[in-house]
Amino acid sequence: MSKNIMVLNGPNLNRLGKRQPEVYGSTTLADVEADLAQLAKELGVEVQCHQSNHEGELIDWVHQAADAHMAVIINPGGFTHTSVALRDALAEVADDQGFIEVHISNVHAREPFRHHSYLSPIATGVIAGLGVEGYQLALRYLAQQR
Amino acid sequence: MSKNIMVLNGPNLNRLGKRQPEVYGSTTLADVEADLAQLAKELGVEVQCHQSNHEGELIDWVHQAADAHMAVIINPGGFTHTSVALRDALAEVADDQGFIEVHISNVHAREPFRHHSYLSPIATGVIAGLGVEGYQLALRYLAQQR
Amino acid sequence: MSKNIMVLNGPNLNRLGKRQPEVYGSTTLADVEADLAQLAKELGVEVQCHQSNHEGELIDWVHQAADAHMAVIINPGGFTHTSVALRDALAEVADDQGFIEVHISNVHAREPFRHHSYLSPIATGVIAGLGVEGYQLALRYLAQQR
Amino acid sequence: MSKNIMVLNGPNLNRLGKRQPEVYGSTTLADVEADLAQLAKELGVEVQCHQSNHEGELIDWVHQAADAHMAVIINPGGFTHTSVALRDALAEVADDQGFIEVHISNVHAREPFRHHSYLSPIATGVIAGLGVEGYQLALRYLAQQR
Amino acid sequence: MSKNIMVLNGPNLNRLGKRQPEVYGSTTLADVEADLAQLAKELGVEVQCHQSNHEGELIDWVHQAADAHMAVIINPGGFTHTSVALRDALAEVADDQGFIEVHISNVHAREPFRHHSYLSPIATGVIAGLGVEGYQLALRYLAQQR
Amino acid sequence: MSKNIMVLNGPNLNRLGKRQPEVYGSTTLADVEADLAQLAKELGVEVQCHQSNHEGELIDWVHQAADAHMAVIINPGGFTHTSVALRDALAEVADDQGFIEVHISNVHAREPFRHHSYLSPIATGVIAGLGVEGYQLALRYLAQQR
Amino acid sequence: MSKNIMVLNGPNLNRLGKRQPEVYGSTTLADVEADLAQLAKELGVEVQCHQSNHEGELIDWVHQAADAHMAVIINPGGFTHTSVALRDALAEVADDQGFIEVHISNVHAREPFRHHSYLSPIATGVIAGLGVEGYQLALRYLAQQR
Amino acid sequence: MSKNIMVLNGPNLNRLGKRQPEVYGSTTLADVEADLAQLAKELGVEVQCHQSNHEGELIDWVHQAADAHMAVIINPGGFTHTSVALRDALAEVADDQGFIEVHISNVHAREPFRHHSYLSPIATGVIAGLGVEGYQLALRYLAQQR
Amino acid sequence: MSKNIMVLNGPNLNRLGKRQPEVYGSTTLADVEADLAQLAKELGVEVQCHQSNHEGELIDWVHQAADAHMAVIINPGGFTHTSVALRDALAEVADDQGFIEVHISNVHAREPFRHHSYLSPIATGVIAGLGVEGYQLALRYLAQQR
Amino acid sequence: MSKNIMVLNGPNLNRLGKRQPEVYGSTTLADVEADLAQLAKELGVEVQCHQSNHEGELIDWVHQAADAHMAVIINPGGFTHTSVALRDALAEVADDQGFIEVHISNVHAREPFRHHSYLSPIATGVIAGLGVEGYQLALRYLAQQR
Amino acid sequence: MSKNIMVLNGPNLNRLGKRQPEVYGSTTLADVEADLAQLAKELGVEVQCHQSNHEGELIDWVHQAADAHMAVIINPGGFTHTSVALRDALAEVADDQGFIEVHISNVHAREPFRHHSYLSPIATGVIAGLGVEGYQLALRYLAQQR
Amino acid sequence: MSKNIMVLNGPNLNRLGKRQPEVYGSTTLADVEADLAQLAKELGVEVQCHQSNHEGELIDWVHQAADAHMAVIINPGGFTHTSVALRDALAEVADDQGFIEVHISNVHAREPFRHHSYLSPIATGVIAGLGVEGYQLALRYLAQQR
Repeated sequence: MSKNIMVLNGPNLNRLGKRQPEVYGSTTLADVEADLAQLAKELGVEVQCHQSNHEGELIDWVHQAADAHMAVIINPGGFTHTSVALRDALAEVADDQGFIEVHISNVHAREPFRHHSYLSPIATGVIAGLGVEGYQLALRYLAQQR
Repeated sequence: MSKNIMVLNGPNLNRLGKRQPEVYGSTTLADVEADLAQLAKELGVEVQCHQSNHEGELIDWVHQAADAHMAVIINPGGFTHTSVALRDALAEVADDQGFIEVHISNVHAREPFRHHSYLSPIATGVIAGLGVEGYQLALRYLAQQR
Repeated sequence: MSKNIMVLNGPNLNRLGKRQPEVYGSTTLADVEADLAQLAKELGVEVQCHQSNHEGELIDWVHQAADAHMAVIINPGGFTHTSVALRDALAEVADDQGFIEVHISNVHAREPFRHHSYLSPIATGVIAGLGVEGYQLALRYLAQQR
Repeated sequence: MSKNIMVLNGPNLNRLGKRQPEVYGSTTLADVEADLAQLAKELGVEVQCHQSNHEGELIDWVHQAADAHMAVIINPGGFTHTSVALRDALAEVADDQGFIEVHISNVHAREPFRHHSYLSPIATGVIAGLGVEGYQLALRYLAQQR
Repeated sequence: MSKNIMVLNGPNLNRLGKRQPEVYGSTTLADVEADLAQLAKELGVEVQCHQSNHEGELIDWVHQAADAHMAVIINPGGFTHTSVALRDALAEVADDQGFIEVHISNVHAREPFRHHSYLSPIATGVIAGLGVEGYQLALRYLAQQR
Repeated sequence: MSKNIMVLNGPNLNRLGKRQPEVYGSTTLADVEADLAQLAKELGVEVQCHQSNHEGELIDWVHQAADAHMAVIINPGGFTHTSVALRDALAEVADDQGFIEVHISNVHAREPFRHHSYLSPIATGVIAGLGVEGYQLALRYLAQQR
Repeated sequence: MSKNIMVLNGPNLNRLGKRQPEVYGSTTLADVEADLAQLAKELGVEVQCHQSNHEGELIDWVHQAADAHMAVIINPGGFTHTSVALRDALAEVADDQGFIEVHISNVHAREPFRHHSYLSPIATGVIAGLGVEGYQLALRYLAQQR
Repeated sequence: MSKNIMVLNGPNLNRLGKRQPEVYGSTTLADVEADLAQLAKELGVEVQCHQSNHEGELIDWVHQAADAHMAVIINPGGFTHTSVALRDALAEVADDQGFIEVHISNVHAREPFRHHSYLSPIATGVIAGLGVEGYQLALRYLAQQR
Repeated sequence: MSKNIMVLNGPNLNRLGKRQPEVYGSTTLADVEADLAQLAKELGVEVQCHQSNHEGELIDWVHQAADAHMAVIINPGGFTHTSVALRDALAEVADDQGFIEVHISNVHAREPFRHHSYLSPIATGVIAGLGVEGYQLALRYLAQQR
Repeated sequence: MSKNIMVLNGPNLNRLGKRQPEVYGSTTLADVEADLAQLAKELGVEVQCHQSNHEGELIDWVHQAADAHMAVIINPGGFTHTSVALRDALAEVADDQGFIEVHISNVHAREPFRHHSYLSPIATGVIAGLGVEGYQLALRYLAQQR
Repeated sequence: MSKNIMVLNGPNLNRLGKRQPEVYGSTTLADVEADLAQLAKELGVEVQCHQSNHEGELIDWVHQAADAHMAVIINPGGFTHTSVALRDALAEVADDQGFIEVHISNVHAREPFRHHSYLSPIATGVIAGLGVEGYQLALRYLAQQR
Repeated sequence: MSKNIMVLNGPNLNRLGKRQPEVYGSTTLADVEADLAQLAKELGVEVQCHQSNHEGELIDWVHQAADAHMAVIINPGGFTHTSVALRDALAEVADDQGFIEVHISNVHAREPFRHHSYLSPIATGVIAGLGVEGYQLALRYLAQQR
């Protein structure tokens, strides 16, 4: 079974570590991706990381993941709550290698509109509120399943 | 009256025929577009076909259709249920040559969030559930109206 | 496979062409049915047309269609939004030859209570807003499927 | 302008005066209709009265009223809350001579499902809770308008 | 039994006949009240008419009506949909001589927030949409009941 | 007290045993009614059975039951969820001998719109999901109460 | 197939016959259980009866029933409307021998919050409003099915 | 404090002045932006104007504004009602220089789905319905605050 | 066209600058009104300012404005969310010179019940969240329109 | 800390003891206020009592209480459920000495629209259903807190 | 009449005074119960106090109170919002001596799910937000009623 | 900081591995707990595991965890969706060491009532759908945070 995993980050996650670093810490998305690459190596899998603020671009990458039979780890940012198109793209992955939805913050502790996700019902699983470690736990899970 | 018709396909429709062909059949979007071009010729109209996973790109094309006074056949995919921006763009076409909303599957038989369309209230008409033939019926209707 | 198709029109459709003809045109239901019979002949299928303002009578006819393994084209008029009984009758047809729901006007552009149909979730497909041509497109679709 | 008025009573109104007469009084629907005929004579108009438990039959009568350009007084009984078909039939009358919706009891003081009427939004007016006198007030209003 | 009836008009009804007379006609509230006084004389009852844009003043008058065991005809204007306090005041009248709620226009044909009345559930009856004649029909009903 | 019981079956129940007998079994409504007649004899009561797809006809029969002071067993089919008129008719029976609402399938396990019944709030009781035996249990209950 | 049936009564049913006996009658839960044991003997099945006001205890008994492949008759009392945990326990029984939900009173005629049951969607069937006889009818049904 | 202000226009605002100029006037977005540049000069601030039909592009610009500590004037067009991603981007600006949401038309007078804005709750303020002058009032406000 | 503008402030706005001045600043309503008078002079228009905690008094003033064909700037305070009567009064102004609704705070950032305004759908425009400057921007707009 | 307490009674509470005294008892509002004055003396605090059917007058008194740093006991009557303006006035008191909301009857046992209070969320506390003693308990509480 | 009162405290109230005493104070439930016993003695009544985190145990105690014809003071903690079973148990007390629902904090100022109580509609009265003094006020009320 | 972690499993989780092992696998709760103990040892923390079908017992354990300043991993089973009492208990842990909510299945892919959790808004984080590995990931996270 395929050991390739695509890690997708949606809108505004490129701001990680840049916005109010004295509050949120200075870990950038680049740091997160580097740590994932390192962990992937340890676990014997490969990760490919992308970020975009463009819904269409994320969909294009999901199509690539589907064609390559990759599992997906995705933090869909604000698209979580609004994008049926992204869900429809991920449905292909869900039927094949599956995907894990990761949220850095605990979305259930925030505004009500963040409590509903179009993606969760077709995800393999969801990890929320465990900070950037959520990505690593997701990777660890996928590596172990294969 | 203009005989030019723009056929727009939204997100994930580029996957037509590629995803689980043993289940959904192997007709691709290219096949669909070729068949429409053929039928258009028979009916004495012209069709121009586009697909995009990017909402903005679809809006840009709708603006072109509006400028060229074209009617539109659109399968908005997931944007059906979420895009006010696409509706606002199509409102110009609705006031001029009109547009027909086509869905390959019967959206009313699927998840509740697919039962609402932002586009339907301003469409000339809607065809759902009749497979890829829906595009041809829409084309036939528009050709006859003109 | 059977080539017989029942065309059912629900309440108030007997008024077609009689009400404000200077506004809505003078095409009567009889005209519509004659045109369908003509098109059916061209397509090599047979149509049987009925209209009633009585829900029970429509249900009786649907039972006849089910017994005869006919496909159905139905414009349920006001029963669209209120009749579970008609849906239950049509469920038999849906499991066998299927039925197409036709609306002359674009119901999605009218009052909110017209946006929900008890029939759509079990229909093969739905055509709305394309005027009396909707019946012909439905017939063309069914003729081609068989 | 036409002085003919159709008075329609819907389901269960044939039970008037028959059900628990010691409680509801012994005025029957026949009594009500006779009183209306008497008042009509005084007011110089003509009334035609019908009652049915069959929605389709009421619709047929509404069509007759529409063809004869009659105004309508209707107590739609339980159909008030459930019949889009009856509303669609009455829409023709509404565009022509208008109709008045009468309820013997005060529907607003009863179960919540009786608080919504499909007919009221297109009625000329509504009289509720004034007992069988409501019919007479409606007749008086229509006679005066003409 | 008391033959005294208080007629109350709520906010903005003092504008009757003043606003766009070319559209709404030039019948003023004074005219309406004079006609009611005239009809009352014919029917052998007495009417006392008040109008206010102040909720508290209307409540004060309702208390007077309650103390005097008068029946009430009330057009509550915008307070129909918002005033629990007025309802609570009228509950005393409802338990005694009863009140009739009158609306000049058909509130059911207007904005959704006008479809709910705090007063209707405790009214004797409701007359809507029959213009300023509604007051007269209400008066006629009350005169006859006594 | 009366020992006469009317058994009413609503729309589509005439299809019992006719639709996909290899799946649903071949017990027809005639069989069900014969079994009930047999059980009635054993229990010393009399049953009178009717079925109709016409709401008005069912209402007429309920009126007959009311006049004859019969208890009623009713499977209202699709009218369960939509007919206020049938409820109003049955209210008379409810005040006298009472009625039992029977559903062959477990309506609570089906579509949400089947979870609400207009009849249940005034029924003596409800039996759902126990197949055609539900009628016999209802009969047994009524026979015992008398 | 197993002939053992567990009869469970939820919170407050231990008060049966103790609360206002002059109103509700003096049949106690012990009486009900004795009658069921008697009927079970006649029908050739065995019943085991338990009551608890503790949700956890009811769940423990359901687990015992599941382990013993028993069918269950349950009157869940107030837990009907609030206990997902009890539903989850009963899901095991539903997949095996099935369970019948019994309510002594007609829950549909009571407060709206009693109209929803977490258990009904997975029950074999539901009997409501037929008093303590409901248990016997349920037992009779189960005995006959086996 | 910074005197730089970014003016963002969302989807379809590039059509300003192009669509039905005989109705909406012929002021184009270019005219609006030129007028703003002129007013900015008078007020001693600098404006930078962008328009896009692409949500991602708008988000990218908002990030630039955040990095440059600019205040923002935004007419989000259809994204007002659907884009959590845009809101999340603007949250950075809201925490720093703030942003003003401008709508040319009175969104509260249009379809219900236009009554909710994802952006308003974190905006400094909102101006709606004052035409293209709304941009100028917003600019005037921001210039004065600094 | 008339250059007279009425400025209305609703309940509790007389507390401006009195409540926690160390937090909200010490600008009183008198200051606001003086500044508006000053600006009006500059713009060549006249303003007339009123405040009341009484809904009826505000309605009376709106009637005066209507009679005098004045435009209105109104901060309706808590009546924004509850007064249909005030809306009905303002409808006259809306049909004539129009009115602008001003809120000092950003109501969209406060409790959900403050997100709905009965006035906005008939207002010319709405300004919220821009502090007491909102009145001045509204005045500037009205002065310019005339 | 201030020992002055304002006791406010809203609309219709002037009817206390006047309406159906044989049912509700003959304790008048004057009696209640006298008892409170007596208790206040015992507890060493001062009370000032007002009643009005006018929302604006109540607001004016609340402003006086705020200026005088008084705590407030308020029975807002029907304004409980409808007055945002009263809430906004009381917010000042809430931030200072606090207020207690008292209802003579148990509002939770009455119509659903009485279950929501605009005042409760900012009240210090709420006492409902304990009759006119509720005022005394509230007074006792406030006296003790100070 | 009985002078015995049962005081029940539901889940988590055993934590009173233990959780963050520097914030919430160090008054424990034992202190509260001791104070109540003391006050009871003064008032000449007897109190019996219980606390449990187990719904079933609380129900058992309510049954004991019912058997002993005791009034009840209950702080149901989290069960307020979720326990129909507890309500059903308390209904017996409500029909006899009545019960008072006490909440230490103002539940109306907390999360929306705390705004609904299953118990309030059948309680004699409710006291919320007055801290642990609420119990004493409730006791005082009950002592006085007897 | 404390390294002790309590692992709580709610109702029906004692059935793990016992129900349809050929489908769900034969891993029992004992296995899960043993694996966690093993992993804890590796990570240098201590775990204490409990399961109960009794809400009250779970609350008691949460209180123990709070007293001992332990972090908590909890799979609340059906109580997730119904227990405010459990949430209130866990609020103490949330303010101290925090807790992680684990669901073996993807609750978002199941019935709608499983989409809402009373616990999630106060949890540190949530892991759903990753099978029994979810517990291990949660443990790993907590061990790492300390």
